[in-house]
Amino acid sequence: MPQFTSFDHQMMSRAISLAKRGIFTTTPNPNVGCVIALGEQIVGEGYHRKAGEPHAEVHAMRMAGEKAVGATAYVTLEPCSHYGRTPPCALGLIKAGVTKVICAMTDPNPQVAGRGIRMLQEAGVEVLVGLLEQDARALNPAFLTRMERGRPYVQLKMAASLDGQTALANGRSQWITSPQARKDVQHYRALASAVLSTSQTVVADNASLNVRWSELPTAIQEEYPEQELRQPTRVILDRQHQLTPELKLYATDGPVLTVAHSAADICVAVGEDQQLSLVDTLEQLASAHNINHVWVEAGATLAKSFIEQELVDEIVLYLAPKIMGSDGRGLFGALGLTDMSLVQNFTIKDLRQVGPDIRVVLTPKN
Amino acid sequence: MPQFTSFDHQMMSRAISLAKRGIFTTTPNPNVGCVIALGEQIVGEGYHRKAGEPHAEVHAMRMAGEKAVGATAYVTLEPCSHYGRTPPCALGLIKAGVTKVICAMTDPNPQVAGRGIRMLQEAGVEVLVGLLEQDARALNPAFLTRMERGRPYVQLKMAASLDGQTALANGRSQWITSPQARKDVQHYRALASAVLSTSQTVVADNASLNVRWSELPTAIQEEYPEQELRQPTRVILDRQHQLTPELKLYATDGPVLTVAHSAADICVAVGEDQQLSLVDTLEQLASAHNINHVWVEAGATLAKSFIEQELVDEIVLYLAPKIMGSDGRGLFGALGLTDMSLVQNFTIKDLRQVGPDIRVVLTPKN
Repeated sequence: MPQFTSFDHQMMSRAISLAKRGIFTTTPNPNVGCVIALGEQIVGEGYHRKAGEPHAEVHAMRMAGEKAVGATAYVTLEPCSHYGRTPPCALGLIKAGVTKVICAMTDPNPQVAGRGIRMLQEAGVEVLVGLLEQDARALNPAFLTRMERGRPYVQLKMAASLDGQTALANGRSQWITSPQARKDVQHYRALASAVLSTSQTVVADNASLNVRWSELPTAIQEEYPEQELRQPTRVILDRQHQLTPELKLYATDGPVLTVAHSAADICVAVGEDQQLSLVDTLEQLASAHNINHVWVEAGATLAKSFIEQELVDEIVLYLAPKIMGSDGRGLFGALGLTDMSLVQNFTIKDLRQVGPDIRVVLTPKN
Repeated sequence: MPQFTSFDHQMMSRAISLAKRGIFTTTPNPNVGCVIALGEQIVGEGYHRKAGEPHAEVHAMRMAGEKAVGATAYVTLEPCSHYGRTPPCALGLIKAGVTKVICAMTDPNPQVAGRGIRMLQEAGVEVLVGLLEQDARALNPAFLTRMERGRPYVQLKMAASLDGQTALANGRSQWITSPQARKDVQHYRALASAVLSTSQTVVADNASLNVRWSELPTAIQEEYPEQELRQPTRVILDRQHQLTPELKLYATDGPVLTVAHSAADICVAVGEDQQLSLVDTLEQLASAHNINHVWVEAGATLAKSFIEQELVDEIVLYLAPKIMGSDGRGLFGALGLTDMSLVQNFTIKDLRQVGPDIRVVLTPKN
């Protein structure tokens, strides 16, 4: 592990902060930030804002101009080495005269990892790797999941009363959670590459499942102007082809992908239980549609399938401080467990109040 | 409202902090703190530690000695005016030569409120009331409930999985919550004047329901030494006289009171539903046994009764991050609700993690 100075730490922290400004818009690309320093002076900085637009390094080099000569570049991710919509950033840094590059982490794609570094080193640029790597990885959990595991990062949204009910026995449930919790959901949708649901949910509620900018929390609106709004892809499991063109789903902005056994945008296998394969769906979303991050909003049945098949990276559970009684509809349905050792355990990743409600973020415990 | 200086605020804050040192031991008395200042110098301070021992003012006066002459006393509660186990504190302050008394609040007992103040004023002492009154009231929610409402403050302990289950369908439940949550329960028992349960719970678990000092959280042990341990009174609803002398309940330290229709320590009415009257029980606990604060640990049926009869001041709910399935035993049983407008709402008073679990403190919303 190379020795980094406290100045190096400071610069990489700044690059990580810059990278965060792209969290709503870079998908399918990762969030990347870059700072160029000459001696102890910052001469350039930038972040990747949107797929198709310049990479972080390009913004920083443009800002640095001549001052990049002899400078050090701090990048949260290994600079790219391929000709895509933009020429390789490694080459750009070499041409700009940068003499040292510090990256937080290598490219997560095993087929390209190290190439950018090699390109720099072969041109005589000193390269150090691993500064604040954990923080840099935390910028891109979803992108890294797609690269490393071949499927998107899956967040499962759920909402219930404190006693675990999602509706009364007669199905009534409007509203269990508060307007603030529903705004928080809009925020999660805005962060996701795709919102996944079922045709039952879409048809029953005539749900649009898109991001309504006016319903985002004010703090988010301030950092994410309406004209830059990116709509996540809506992915609807539609086993029995129940979606019809007059649904709100199709009247609102943003792409829709249908999933079925045949005659759909994504065709997947059907299991013995007659259910569409979730594994197939996720793998195709990653490989054919570059979806990094799926936000699942659906009923108890689908939630249970995702959990039982161990396809959930996070549960985002809203609990309203209400008592509905155990004769309502439970969060996960009957599980038939006979011993406490069979109970699925989770770890609390985050716990807070959202308006009058509780929001708890859980990760499965192995 | 009199004008208080920032020095006055500082002194009363200190008196409130001192009062808190008695939280485990003063019951049935309130927590009270006192600071005596001569000019801008603290010359005496103290707090009430235990019923039968000197009041806060006495400790502060002893410490101040001669320096109390011409001084100001800051007391979190109106000084007492009656001859009890100790002579009236108002008289003591007059004799000590204090010339000004600032109280956070008057005596909550309407029959004595103002008498201490009048006694001081008649002796020529200047008295101001109302400095940090809300904070002073927050020191003694349970004592104030007994004084003002004629019944103890009721905290209801509950524990469940995230999906609202208290046990699997076959009754298995050990353990849903973590050792840390169980230590936290010991802490709540230690704060209570009484722990209330049913003979079913006591017999089924052979539960002692006392405070086990060794199981208190370390931070509590440090402020509450083992030799000072006060055991709450255990109050057991024993409608069918199921308690027997060989139970652990009777082999452990601390008083036990039984509640039944007849032949019990507390005899109460039985309603049409054949249940013991909770209102009667609470009123007798307050009036005949000076119980300020009841911590209820029991099953779903009793919890439901307390809530339905609006006798709960706080629910302390532990939620373990586990999924047990809706075929287990629910927190409150079936409620038969048919409309969301009938659902009981609560306000979150406190939300935090206790070890791996969630603890949420709720108050009923009117």
